[in-house]
Amino acid sequence: MNEKPVSLSVINRLPRYYRYLGILLASGTGRISSRELARQMRITASQIRQDLNCFGGFGQQGYGYNVEMLHREIGRILGAERMIPAILIGAGSLGRTLIREPDYFRHRGFDLLAVFDKSPSVIGSVLRNGMVVRPVGDLAAFCGERRPRMAVICIPRTEAAGLADTLVRDLGIDAFWNFSGFDFKCHYENVAVVNVHLGDSLLTLSYLANHRA
Amino acid sequence: MNEKPVSLSVINRLPRYYRYLGILLASGTGRISSRELARQMRITASQIRQDLNCFGGFGQQGYGYNVEMLHREIGRILGAERMIPAILIGAGSLGRTLIREPDYFRHRGFDLLAVFDKSPSVIGSVLRNGMVVRPVGDLAAFCGERRPRMAVICIPRTEAAGLADTLVRDLGIDAFWNFSGFDFKCHYENVAVVNVHLGDSLLTLSYLANHRA
Repeated sequence: MNEKPVSLSVINRLPRYYRYLGILLASGTGRISSRELARQMRITASQIRQDLNCFGGFGQQGYGYNVEMLHREIGRILGAERMIPAILIGAGSLGRTLIREPDYFRHRGFDLLAVFDKSPSVIGSVLRNGMVVRPVGDLAAFCGERRPRMAVICIPRTEAAGLADTLVRDLGIDAFWNFSGFDFKCHYENVAVVNVHLGDSLLTLSYLANHRA
Repeated sequence: MNEKPVSLSVINRLPRYYRYLGILLASGTGRISSRELARQMRITASQIRQDLNCFGGFGQQGYGYNVEMLHREIGRILGAERMIPAILIGAGSLGRTLIREPDYFRHRGFDLLAVFDKSPSVIGSVLRNGMVVRPVGDLAAFCGERRPRMAVICIPRTEAAGLADTLVRDLGIDAFWNFSGFDFKCHYENVAVVNVHLGDSLLTLSYLANHRA
């Protein structure tokens, strides 16, 4: 299978394929045509074929896709089973929500090792996943020993800005699931970043609700 | 100002402009060139001009943008001050996180009226914003009286599927900030929907971290 560079818009669609195929798999569907998958996902069959062709294609002409095989292969492309070691910084309401579902990170390619916070009122408390919140001051020692590569950033923008140099330059973190609004890409090269701006999506809904056809 | 139909990709970028302009405004910046705004946002100046031209454009050639005016105008386009009445369904960890910041909804065009849940252990509890969690059974009476138009859906996919007909057909909800994974667009016409799939963005990060240049 050839793995030449793939456009970000294709990459952004892969998790959605993976999710729909996971639902089909759980419901016992063994095989699905690109037409039927397209109908369920509200895209075109040619979009599906085009996207999957970026990775060599997986369909057998006229037979449709083997759901289990396609789910596994897309998971492999996404790295869902690679288990990159990760930490989470900020054990507030959002941070706790993200770790609430067991295996949430493991099912998506990350092994969550520890959770850090700076607040004395939170440090030492036991989370739903059984982890004890560690002080941010222990980051260097922890990272030196366990070598996490990804950090989930659940602290405000200004705090993230203050911690960024330490994380990237001193501790070797090079991937960020970033809820902070701080723009890592603007300051560091060769970091993998996904920024989540929930508020932006709420504003998009405001637009759509106000500009209805 | 002409308001012809605007592509979804432009609409999806508007909240990001609004956010950056809000930061500039708070920092006291009165005027900014498209070149400098582009640098901070890591896009091209021509992208900015092209996007804003969809709404008639706001720049004065050679003078840059008036930050306050542009922020206000984009806010107006997004409907940030329209205050569509809204409810939230599912007072679990995620639902509570979303209502934690005061004015989070008001700053983005929605007036959150009430929070509902089906769980007896949660109903009646007081949330951080002072609201008392109401039973889902009270939805019809509440909506008949207060006429919310938008619902934030923080319940699992199967539960959302079971409640969807009631919300859309009986209660007149026609906009959804949807965290459930249930596909409202697939079942109803003329609903405004923004689906948030946090797990998808984590998988995208897995891909990016594993396929580093």
